[in-house]
Formats: sequence, structure tokens, C-alpha cells
Amino acid sequence: MKRFQQALVFAFSLAIPVLALAHNGDHADPVRYRQSGYYLIGWHFAPMAAMIKGERPMDAKDFATHAQFVADIARVLPEGFANGPHKGKTDAKPEIWKNPGDFADKMKAFQEQSAQLAQIAQGGDAAQIKGQFIKTAETCKACHDDYRKD
Amino acid sequence: MKRFQQALVFAFSLAIPVLALAHNGDHADPVRYRQSGYYLIGWHFAPMAAMIKGERPMDAKDFATHAQFVADIARVLPEGFANGPHKGKTDAKPEIWKNPGDFADKMKAFQEQSAQLAQIAQGGDAAQIKGQFIKTAETCKACHDDYRKD
Repeated sequence: MKRFQQALVFAFSLAIPVLALAHNGDHADPVRYRQSGYYLIGWHFAPMAAMIKGERPMDAKDFATHAQFVADIARVLPEGFANGPHKGKTDAKPEIWKNPGDFADKMKAFQEQSAQLAQIAQGGDAAQIKGQFIKTAETCKACHDDYRKD
Repeated sequence: MKRFQQALVFAFSLAIPVLALAHNGDHADPVRYRQSGYYLIGWHFAPMAAMIKGERPMDAKDFATHAQFVADIARVLPEGFANGPHKGKTDAKPEIWKNPGDFADKMKAFQEQSAQLAQIAQGGDAAQIKGQFIKTAETCKACHDDYRKD
């Protein structure tokens, strides 16, 4: 028990500087949170789009990695919209918090279709991948059309 | 075949505005990429640390979700360090690209320990969770000590 308590003290001494670094002294900012998520998603969406459009050669393994990352990051997004609208420079429309059910449905559609894309991408069937990429892009657009400023 | 071509044209018309939105007109920025990842990780690390420290009640389900998100985002980080050092305001030390093998090992340790934390968190054993949280925080600190400016 004593050893475990020592371990905990050690954990605190570790965790505190780690957290201080992670936040750079500023408070948790939901706008920065969700923009971080979308930046990562955009980063990984771009090479998939380029492969689908034939602007770069299809690399099935690379595509599958990007698809998995998009699906993984999609799951963290909702937390950045909780208890809004939030202060800060944002392209999020206030309609998000006026129609929370519809927004949640559209977010869920993106999460589901991107998860499906990640799964199909592992199979390596080019036609299926292209079809599912379209479906996923549609869920992006559906939400942006209604809830993101142009 | 004609139908498939039409579908592709449709995909392009969808994907292009989506990508344009995602990038806000700026080029892909590895510094912003990795800082986005660490911001999300810090966001989800904080409530776990608070639960471990007893600053907030332990909620096993909530803890497990945060642990899974940290593990998921950890996997995307390496791409933000590829082909560096990069221009921009960054706390990343140039030593990262002088010792790529050691940096990769430390990154891998974080990925592995955070994945282990996500798995153990699902089991709900408080002592195991605390122990694995310490191990994970150690991998954060090990990399920050050597490769992040204070």
C-alpha cells in the first residue's frame, strides 16, 4: 500500500507538468478543440480525394490508413460542440445549437459513413472504395451546407 | 459504366468544396497538424488526470472514453513530424530530426502505453487503471523532456 501511494505521488508529479504543457497555460477552448479535429480530418481527407480523382496513384494501404484516421478523429468531434455556442472566431453557425437533434444526426452520419469507409478501404475493392468515399463526402457537405459559414 | 462515371463527377463536385473548407485556403502545415493532435490529447488527458488525482469523482465509462480518444489520436501524430524540421512557431526541438530513431521509439512508447491504458480502462479495475495512467504519463514526460522546449 505504501508503495502504491508512492507511485501515485510520482504520477501526480508527472501528470501536472504534462498537463501544464498540453494546455500552454490557456483554458480549454471548445472552438480550438473542434478546429483541431477538423484540421486533422481535412489533412487526411485530402490525399484520399486526390487518389479518388486520379491526381495521385491509388495506394490502397495508404488510403486505408487515412480512412482509419478520419474515422477515429470523427468520433472525438462532438465534444467540441457541447454546451455552445462558444466565444471565439468560428465558422460554426448558431443554428447548430438551435437544431441539436438534426446536427447530432448529421454528425452521426459522418461518423458512421467514415467508419464504413475505413472498413471498406481495408478490403481494397476500388469501386466499393470510391462509392463509399462519395457517401462520406456527402455527409461532410450535408453538415457544412447547413451549419458552417461559407 | 456511364452511371459510375456520373457518380465520380458527383464525388468531385462534393469533394472539392469540402476540401476547400477543410483547409481554409492555407497549405498543409505540419506544425498546425501536430499541435492540433496534442491539443486534442491534452483535452482528453486532463479529465483522466483529475480523476486519478481525486479532483473529480472517478467515472469509469467517462475515463475509458477519454483513454480511447487519446490512444486513437496518438496514432496520427507521427505524420506531423515527417520531413522536418518545419517552419513556424513550434516548441519542437530540432533534436527530433537529429535523433529520429530515439524520437520514433519514444513516440511508439506513448502509442503503446496509451493503447494499453484504453484497454485496461475498459476493465474498470481502479488500481490497474492508475498504474497504467502513470506509465502513460511517463511516456509523455520522457519525450517532452528531450524533445520539447519548456
